[in-house]
Amino acid sequence: MAGNRGVAYIEPGKVEVHETDYQKLELLDGPGVNPANVGRKLNHGVILKVVTTNICGSDQHMVRGRTTAPPNLVLGHEILGEVVEKGSDVEFIEVGDICSVPFNIACGRCRNCKEGKTGICLNVNPARPGAAYGYVDMGGWVGGQAEYVTVPYADWNLLKFPDRDQALEKVLDLTMLSDIFPTGFHGAVTAGVKPGSTVYIAGAGPVGLAAAVGAQLLGAAVVIVSDLNEGRLAQARSFGCETVDVSKGSPQDQIEQILGVPEVDAAVDAVGFEARGHGEGAGKEAPATVLNSLMEITAAGGAIGIPGLYVTGDPGGIDEAAKVGALSLSLGTGWAKSISFTTGQCPVMRYNRGLMMAILHDKVQIAKAVNATTISLDEAPQGYAEFDSGAAKKYVIDPHGMVPQKAA
Amino acid sequence: MAGNRGVAYIEPGKVEVHETDYQKLELLDGPGVNPANVGRKLNHGVILKVVTTNICGSDQHMVRGRTTAPPNLVLGHEILGEVVEKGSDVEFIEVGDICSVPFNIACGRCRNCKEGKTGICLNVNPARPGAAYGYVDMGGWVGGQAEYVTVPYADWNLLKFPDRDQALEKVLDLTMLSDIFPTGFHGAVTAGVKPGSTVYIAGAGPVGLAAAVGAQLLGAAVVIVSDLNEGRLAQARSFGCETVDVSKGSPQDQIEQILGVPEVDAAVDAVGFEARGHGEGAGKEAPATVLNSLMEITAAGGAIGIPGLYVTGDPGGIDEAAKVGALSLSLGTGWAKSISFTTGQCPVMRYNRGLMMAILHDKVQIAKAVNATTISLDEAPQGYAEFDSGAAKKYVIDPHGMVPQKAA
Amino acid sequence: MAGNRGVAYIEPGKVEVHETDYQKLELLDGPGVNPANVGRKLNHGVILKVVTTNICGSDQHMVRGRTTAPPNLVLGHEILGEVVEKGSDVEFIEVGDICSVPFNIACGRCRNCKEGKTGICLNVNPARPGAAYGYVDMGGWVGGQAEYVTVPYADWNLLKFPDRDQALEKVLDLTMLSDIFPTGFHGAVTAGVKPGSTVYIAGAGPVGLAAAVGAQLLGAAVVIVSDLNEGRLAQARSFGCETVDVSKGSPQDQIEQILGVPEVDAAVDAVGFEARGHGEGAGKEAPATVLNSLMEITAAGGAIGIPGLYVTGDPGGIDEAAKVGALSLSLGTGWAKSISFTTGQCPVMRYNRGLMMAILHDKVQIAKAVNATTISLDEAPQGYAEFDSGAAKKYVIDPHGMVPQKAA
Amino acid sequence: MAGNRGVAYIEPGKVEVHETDYQKLELLDGPGVNPANVGRKLNHGVILKVVTTNICGSDQHMVRGRTTAPPNLVLGHEILGEVVEKGSDVEFIEVGDICSVPFNIACGRCRNCKEGKTGICLNVNPARPGAAYGYVDMGGWVGGQAEYVTVPYADWNLLKFPDRDQALEKVLDLTMLSDIFPTGFHGAVTAGVKPGSTVYIAGAGPVGLAAAVGAQLLGAAVVIVSDLNEGRLAQARSFGCETVDVSKGSPQDQIEQILGVPEVDAAVDAVGFEARGHGEGAGKEAPATVLNSLMEITAAGGAIGIPGLYVTGDPGGIDEAAKVGALSLSLGTGWAKSISFTTGQCPVMRYNRGLMMAILHDKVQIAKAVNATTISLDEAPQGYAEFDSGAAKKYVIDPHGMVPQKAA
Repeated sequence: MAGNRGVAYIEPGKVEVHETDYQKLELLDGPGVNPANVGRKLNHGVILKVVTTNICGSDQHMVRGRTTAPPNLVLGHEILGEVVEKGSDVEFIEVGDICSVPFNIACGRCRNCKEGKTGICLNVNPARPGAAYGYVDMGGWVGGQAEYVTVPYADWNLLKFPDRDQALEKVLDLTMLSDIFPTGFHGAVTAGVKPGSTVYIAGAGPVGLAAAVGAQLLGAAVVIVSDLNEGRLAQARSFGCETVDVSKGSPQDQIEQILGVPEVDAAVDAVGFEARGHGEGAGKEAPATVLNSLMEITAAGGAIGIPGLYVTGDPGGIDEAAKVGALSLSLGTGWAKSISFTTGQCPVMRYNRGLMMAILHDKVQIAKAVNATTISLDEAPQGYAEFDSGAAKKYVIDPHGMVPQKAA
Repeated sequence: MAGNRGVAYIEPGKVEVHETDYQKLELLDGPGVNPANVGRKLNHGVILKVVTTNICGSDQHMVRGRTTAPPNLVLGHEILGEVVEKGSDVEFIEVGDICSVPFNIACGRCRNCKEGKTGICLNVNPARPGAAYGYVDMGGWVGGQAEYVTVPYADWNLLKFPDRDQALEKVLDLTMLSDIFPTGFHGAVTAGVKPGSTVYIAGAGPVGLAAAVGAQLLGAAVVIVSDLNEGRLAQARSFGCETVDVSKGSPQDQIEQILGVPEVDAAVDAVGFEARGHGEGAGKEAPATVLNSLMEITAAGGAIGIPGLYVTGDPGGIDEAAKVGALSLSLGTGWAKSISFTTGQCPVMRYNRGLMMAILHDKVQIAKAVNATTISLDEAPQGYAEFDSGAAKKYVIDPHGMVPQKAA
Repeated sequence: MAGNRGVAYIEPGKVEVHETDYQKLELLDGPGVNPANVGRKLNHGVILKVVTTNICGSDQHMVRGRTTAPPNLVLGHEILGEVVEKGSDVEFIEVGDICSVPFNIACGRCRNCKEGKTGICLNVNPARPGAAYGYVDMGGWVGGQAEYVTVPYADWNLLKFPDRDQALEKVLDLTMLSDIFPTGFHGAVTAGVKPGSTVYIAGAGPVGLAAAVGAQLLGAAVVIVSDLNEGRLAQARSFGCETVDVSKGSPQDQIEQILGVPEVDAAVDAVGFEARGHGEGAGKEAPATVLNSLMEITAAGGAIGIPGLYVTGDPGGIDEAAKVGALSLSLGTGWAKSISFTTGQCPVMRYNRGLMMAILHDKVQIAKAVNATTISLDEAPQGYAEFDSGAAKKYVIDPHGMVPQKAA
Repeated sequence: MAGNRGVAYIEPGKVEVHETDYQKLELLDGPGVNPANVGRKLNHGVILKVVTTNICGSDQHMVRGRTTAPPNLVLGHEILGEVVEKGSDVEFIEVGDICSVPFNIACGRCRNCKEGKTGICLNVNPARPGAAYGYVDMGGWVGGQAEYVTVPYADWNLLKFPDRDQALEKVLDLTMLSDIFPTGFHGAVTAGVKPGSTVYIAGAGPVGLAAAVGAQLLGAAVVIVSDLNEGRLAQARSFGCETVDVSKGSPQDQIEQILGVPEVDAAVDAVGFEARGHGEGAGKEAPATVLNSLMEITAAGGAIGIPGLYVTGDPGGIDEAAKVGALSLSLGTGWAKSISFTTGQCPVMRYNRGLMMAILHDKVQIAKAVNATTISLDEAPQGYAEFDSGAAKKYVIDPHGMVPQKAA
């Protein structure tokens, strides 16, 4: 009889692949499940056989022990799969469909969903607006780094690919549609990137690289990516970005060498609260350093997109202020320049269909840009460790060996 | 021969009316004039006989000694006047025209002006983008709390009223077009106010009241204004706003009593860096308190408009962080709710024509809402003092006795 | 046992109240039901006891015989009701809720719904994008001018009022949320109306009057409504609009008398294809006359919102071109002025919540503006006749006598 | 002493290169100069030595005799040049600067300019909003297909290139910034093209090809270009577009073969009023055929950008309706699909800086896409003839032999 296996968070620094029960169209009790969600019927949901599921930088916050994630939480919110079972209220998705799953769980029935704000759905997380799979404080929905996963409100949430063979052929690109490609793209959009813009992206991890690809797709003239990690910067250069190594002096000076002026039209914070200092002292955590730097770097009238995660509490914060999520921001710098700021989870559904079209018609090579690297489910713990050590790779778990060799 | 008289900043707490030279179509050296601006020819400018010029809350920052404003700086950036002399390059403005002067000085010829970003014009202030009349670090343009003032780039900057008699009849409303009405309106617009919105405005000074009028004009269902000053709250109630007295408990609780829910769709910070604490301890300066409070109050998916001024340096700041403009912001609170933030000077030209039309056709009574109170030029020092003490009035200086008795 | 009664179209010029079967959560065969929709299960739907249901000008197109509507079609797409039964998949709407029904039927699960384009849902009408209740060629969903009506995809489609008593008290205003208030408002929004705009609305029927109220709510400085019907023009003047009687000379001349210039910033076509000529010869059908006139009247850079219905075939058209929906448009007039045009059904869900808030907080009096007039179900045929003869009233059918006397 | 030479329209089918007077900073009387513009002082203007000036499809309307252009009108509104003389009111442009000239002449001082609507400036054409160089009924400003040309309001109108050598090196790309690249891009923008869109562009002349490049820059997934001219279609395919030959059957069928569905998200009319019929009878003028076809082709919820010119009078129109600019449009087809339409001249200034950046950083190869072909001033008449015969080339006149051989 069918069971399931998934990647579970055990304790800081440790994840393991566990045997679990097969999924049902009901949200059962388990680690981190909000009590008010226990027993929720999911006739509007489907069960997916997971084709690919990626390790995300935000998973690392949990695994590093920077959150209150409970032990045995099955991780994973970047999911692409094949429908193997559907609930009685699912009308437009069929068994056999290959679909992308937005990491935001949304009901499609509340005020926010009706306004396209699927990152802050009001009906899926009793604790606050917004939910996700396999994530602390996000409602308790079971994660998808597993063989099978349940997706609620399937007609609303799923993006069905038009052709099964084509989907599998491009699966390493399409798997990025569940989170990092839309998330990076959202960063670029909310930074106001448009044809001809000069863009600075702080952070060359997968989201930063996806933001760079997104900025290119939006027509940016120059995309500059910064990081402390030379391997990741090399990855950015591999698809036409300029780079700034923040350990080697002021970003402004380096930008001026590239552009002739020390500022850009648009900036993206793809780092978030675990930021490390720039220049001298680079490497030490300094939660406000990226945002303060971006206010210096962004030209008057510009905007800063902030897909990087900021939190309200950080048990591992470097000081008392950081522990309660208080950042020391030089807001006056931004104010004098009339800068605007957009925060929050990307509402994936706003972008995933268009980005899918760009992938299917070969306008972007997102898998190559983020260096997608396929591993088995059993290799997930090793993938977590390598990613945490700064590997310039995006790890894609392939639980059923369905990723074509050519694509991998 | 014609001279001039103007309100000069002398030292913290002191302004005086000084005799000065008559204006010329040239920017002469004087207190606070940026050296690179000295001697600038203004054939594109006009000289206005000042009909009305208002005392602004941002003038108070200087007068309180919270800036590096130099002694003898002639103040005043809220100006409405009659053209008495025009430069050779002025084509579409004529002597005798009654005009509103946006407080932002803009060239109409740079990239930012071409994009409508007149608050950050690149050609009027050698020190940074953006300039204003009679303001520290804003290029050194002579202030308009005077009998006469020079306006550069007159064809671009001036808003001409269609009819002289009508303009004088409604002058106490129209005088608000140079700054506070557009500034408050910009706060409401950037907070995303639209028909049916619930809106919270922090601060019941003139900008906060103008933001409230602006929110009403945008169709808000409920406008809630907060302050510590009961007289100003009463002023807000006089035109249909709900109010929150932040000295009397948590804003959320008071909002819940009004709306049934403890949050609003849209919020405006009409206070800025000289904010004072809420609830217990209310009254003590707490520069980040308004923004942190607004992140709590604003519903997920909402926006915060920030017309309130934040600075990069504050000699009178309460602590070392405040002195360099560093705010301790709980950004994670906003991030979790996908809130966006818009900062900066209002680009007055974007709004002043539409707001003028609303005034001329009796759709808004902004003068009444902010309790416009006419004084003579010689009464200006007293006006500053009363305003600083919290009077729920907007002081309008009438240097030539041109304000009709009925209007006043 | 409960049956149902509804207003049925019989033949040109004739409607009757018929006994029908009680509604089920299934779309049964009947007049005008698209064969592919027959037997569709509606577990996602609810049955409403109709509290109010209005006669719409677009119903008149059918009743006048200007469409291919089949005999015995139960009419009615403007519906407000109380939930009396809910399907098994309805989660967030409860029996007893009082709700507004957008006239657009939408699934909440297709690409267009996800983008907020509920007027062109892809899953509710096998013949084309978009569906409605009780309307020819709109999928065959049974109309709501009846005692009971079925609403599919209830969690998505219904707007629940927060308080039952308050809803009934303001029911004559709230009943306008299903169609004409959002439709008129959409016309104003797509015409680009904003604070200070001057606006011209062609047509003083209920949609035109609703567009006028919408323009006022958006902050318009002046709203001018035109018609040939003096009673309707008087209705427009009753809430502060200016008026133009197109039978009394050129609209431009009349506009110039009002505004001082012969043009406006924004224009709305609230007439559609059954337009009648202006000036000399006024009264004779002239399908393109409104749009050609609006291109003359709208200032360069303006926009025209077109909520008025245009069709692809009109059996009663005045000539061969009209019969196939071909209009003789002077597009060059618009092109020279860079005018834009927005057509189509209003996506009601985009606006209804905000407009509800404006009603509940007394910011608008839409019922009074359109002269809402309550009638019983049995009086519906007479209501159709009076409305067709040009009565300046909006007829609201009250099938169960639930409209409070005070409200009526 | 310096004179000037320019390309003059003589009579239908005939242009000649004429000797003319050297330009002055004053608008002198001449062919087509609006009397109210005669003698206008241009101290705000500069005289340019023309580096490149292109022949535009809209020039052909005049040369074919389809307008009321007067004999001896010097043509040319696509201009790139070097400043050789500047007026006393010019502050930020210097002699020696290499600049692009937007074909729209705008004052930078009227309401429309302040709103960025430079295509309908109120102060440059006494006859109507909007002006251009060398064009009938556009104010009488002297055309730029000449050795020298005067540009008024130079600080406002000119786009200065950052580096002279770089500008000359890329001059064949940059010369497209004065009109066709922004115009085509505007078509794509107003058609709502965004990342992932499918786009259909009617017309493979230079504007259509520029629209295709623009759509690609905006991230379109698939760009389909249609025409009757196989050479032009081959040009479209040369940079990655799909093509539809409208002489070979229905566009919908051909689109379905490309996309799998017979419709697109966004459509651009790059043809205008001299459209020719599709399918059977292809080639005969049919002014409404493109717009009617685009309403069929565009998916529900889409938009149509209309950079193609439509006129209010056409002496050469095929019938009485065409002669007065009346088009027989099936607006109901668009209405049923909620399509929006944007007409008018492109406001070049809104886009030219961003597109310049895209060129300078090698993100687009517009010159190659439109097959830019350099000719001398004396070859202009031949260029007109070849272009009119359907050559798949964009003719760039190089009056002073300044185009580098490499670039050409």
